[in-house]
Amino acid sequence: MKKVYLDNAACTPLDPRVFEVMTPYFVEEYGNPATIHSYGLAPREGMEKAREQVGLLLNAKPENVFFTSNGSESNNMAIKGVCFANQARGKHIIVSEIEHFSVLQAVKSMEKLGFTSSQLKVGTDGIVKTDELKNLIKDETVLVSIMLANHEIGTIQPIAEAAAVIKKINADRVLRKLQPVYLHTDAVAAVGVIPVDVEALGIDLLSLASSSFYGPKGAAALYIRNGVRINPLIDGGIQEGGRRAGLENVPAIVGMGKAAEFAKSEMIERNKKMEPLRDLMIQLILKNITQVRLNGDAKKRLPGNVNVSVEFIEGESMLMWLDDVGIAASSGSACTSKALKASHVLLSIGVPQEVCHGSMLFSLNKDITKTEVEFAAEEFTKIVKKLREMSPLYKKS
Amino acid sequence: MKKVYLDNAACTPLDPRVFEVMTPYFVEEYGNPATIHSYGLAPREGMEKAREQVGLLLNAKPENVFFTSNGSESNNMAIKGVCFANQARGKHIIVSEIEHFSVLQAVKSMEKLGFTSSQLKVGTDGIVKTDELKNLIKDETVLVSIMLANHEIGTIQPIAEAAAVIKKINADRVLRKLQPVYLHTDAVAAVGVIPVDVEALGIDLLSLASSSFYGPKGAAALYIRNGVRINPLIDGGIQEGGRRAGLENVPAIVGMGKAAEFAKSEMIERNKKMEPLRDLMIQLILKNITQVRLNGDAKKRLPGNVNVSVEFIEGESMLMWLDDVGIAASSGSACTSKALKASHVLLSIGVPQEVCHGSMLFSLNKDITKTEVEFAAEEFTKIVKKLREMSPLYKKS
Repeated sequence: MKKVYLDNAACTPLDPRVFEVMTPYFVEEYGNPATIHSYGLAPREGMEKAREQVGLLLNAKPENVFFTSNGSESNNMAIKGVCFANQARGKHIIVSEIEHFSVLQAVKSMEKLGFTSSQLKVGTDGIVKTDELKNLIKDETVLVSIMLANHEIGTIQPIAEAAAVIKKINADRVLRKLQPVYLHTDAVAAVGVIPVDVEALGIDLLSLASSSFYGPKGAAALYIRNGVRINPLIDGGIQEGGRRAGLENVPAIVGMGKAAEFAKSEMIERNKKMEPLRDLMIQLILKNITQVRLNGDAKKRLPGNVNVSVEFIEGESMLMWLDDVGIAASSGSACTSKALKASHVLLSIGVPQEVCHGSMLFSLNKDITKTEVEFAAEEFTKIVKKLREMSPLYKKS
Repeated sequence: MKKVYLDNAACTPLDPRVFEVMTPYFVEEYGNPATIHSYGLAPREGMEKAREQVGLLLNAKPENVFFTSNGSESNNMAIKGVCFANQARGKHIIVSEIEHFSVLQAVKSMEKLGFTSSQLKVGTDGIVKTDELKNLIKDETVLVSIMLANHEIGTIQPIAEAAAVIKKINADRVLRKLQPVYLHTDAVAAVGVIPVDVEALGIDLLSLASSSFYGPKGAAALYIRNGVRINPLIDGGIQEGGRRAGLENVPAIVGMGKAAEFAKSEMIERNKKMEPLRDLMIQLILKNITQVRLNGDAKKRLPGNVNVSVEFIEGESMLMWLDDVGIAASSGSACTSKALKASHVLLSIGVPQEVCHGSMLFSLNKDITKTEVEFAAEEFTKIVKKLREMSPLYKKS
């Protein structure tokens, strides 16, 4: 059977070229990078090279890149770390309503410890209303967290605009001897996929994960600008400059570095291929299926993201039927796909609850072909038709 | 040059048989285990098999095993998770004074949030005085954390005795409608090396790490008994039963499982080989070098642990010279080896500060040979002699 993997938002395939570079760090170079004898040398050098490669991808200095184990850890580290380190100065956080669960739940945990939070609204286009920031920031605000690209609907957020608003507020706060408000962006879905420049964005903290750009599982990072006050999430030894304790996952970190290098050098080429195929897939779906909508802005979206809602049928059923013909897709976030709840992201952009359940995320990768897109769109169309024939709701409509 | 790796306390070599089992989960089975389509199947099954294998090693049910990224994360999750979940009931923690930095620093972080802590003393033999527990436990105590085997001096602690003391106290607390005190053990240095049975130990939480028993970096776990109230360290999605969010490091987890299986089936054989060679090494060092002491009880210690303090010379110098002849050892904990501070563990057992600096940890592994031990002991003796010839302190003695 032909197989088409269109669930790259959940996890991209590991690039075999990346695995090749990782391989010596398993059985041969097994030393602990913290050791001062010669077994520590290659692992340490491998990690530091990776830190440079990741830094280059972000336009950041390597010393501002701190490795973690996954994107959720990076987000928790950013939010809890900043909150705990700055709580004497204020206990208010602002996040957008379409953040990843690892951001929203971390905020909930801080609320149980006395913090309060405000949510930035999002338009029906899936773009966060950053101009509301100036009304939400209070003297007690310590952190704003807005994602760079949404993990479900793929919309790319105006982070630089948010940073500009915050910069202005911070200039005034300095005069009033208040600490600056920090800006964190969850860029897990963005880094390695679209250009991300920490200087151009003007952010203070940024989360990224290797599994979004054909790197291995088990490696992710948090960029932290110099001077940001932040506590570790994992306390202990002096690894990662004392910011993240414990034995480092050397092979995965080395792989993340190599994947970052490829992402940087191949990004333009990859997106030149993916974007037209994404648009083709959207076009085929909107043309061939009735009562279907594209979720999120058509232009300001990740190059591989096709998120649609089909009325009168269930996402889970579509997924199963697609899987039967060899197509892997998703009905939403991989982190919550078993929970069977309507996506908070789709609800935020005004998709009605019952339509949310008929949502489907096809996420393309760098190796996608036109044949695959056409095949997937055709099979999807057939499946929607068949499922609707069985749907009492559709018949009534 | 002949190479002898005697720094297995920092990290054991990855067993090539383990790497072989991990390999398909990199490039081929790259799916996200949370996905419901067929790409998620093999990763999910691989992880669940690993959970069973780890459970079998601990005499635990698989559903009580929660995967993390390293031992420090497991320790932080246990301590912070229990503290945050139970803080309405009390804010007091008890730990031994020879705990790993990831335990001690996690406790410090909780102290900044209003918790207090007490330290259990340790004897000159490196064994924690668990009978002191009954005097230290207060109504406000929520957690006791005592390691199973010390990471530096290798001493094996009487955890079952500590559990018995706590069980008695908890029986009384139940009558007084107080919540039970939980017992956590950092078993990172012990699991996979000596028999560990969560039922026989009577603990509530137990940390372990793959890198201690020839498994890969990037995988570790926390055992949590049913009914223990604990918050996640990493909030977000529903992975690991909602206890540890984020994409799982599938290949490393699969490897940890296989390494656990080998540890269980080969443990007796491994230790039958290691223990006499450990004793031989200790014997050769004590015989050939003057003014040297063995740290930690000679019998109640890990099968591969040789920790000695040599007077009048520096551990760092010995390490460098040993490295020059191909021998990798450690001057203490890998997590702090760059910090050049006297080990808190050695200070606790009464080693004078200046002697602490002359300490050396040789940690053997399952593949050690008699020839290697003899070579290492001989080279070490020569190096000590040469360094002492250069030491003004030694000349004065």
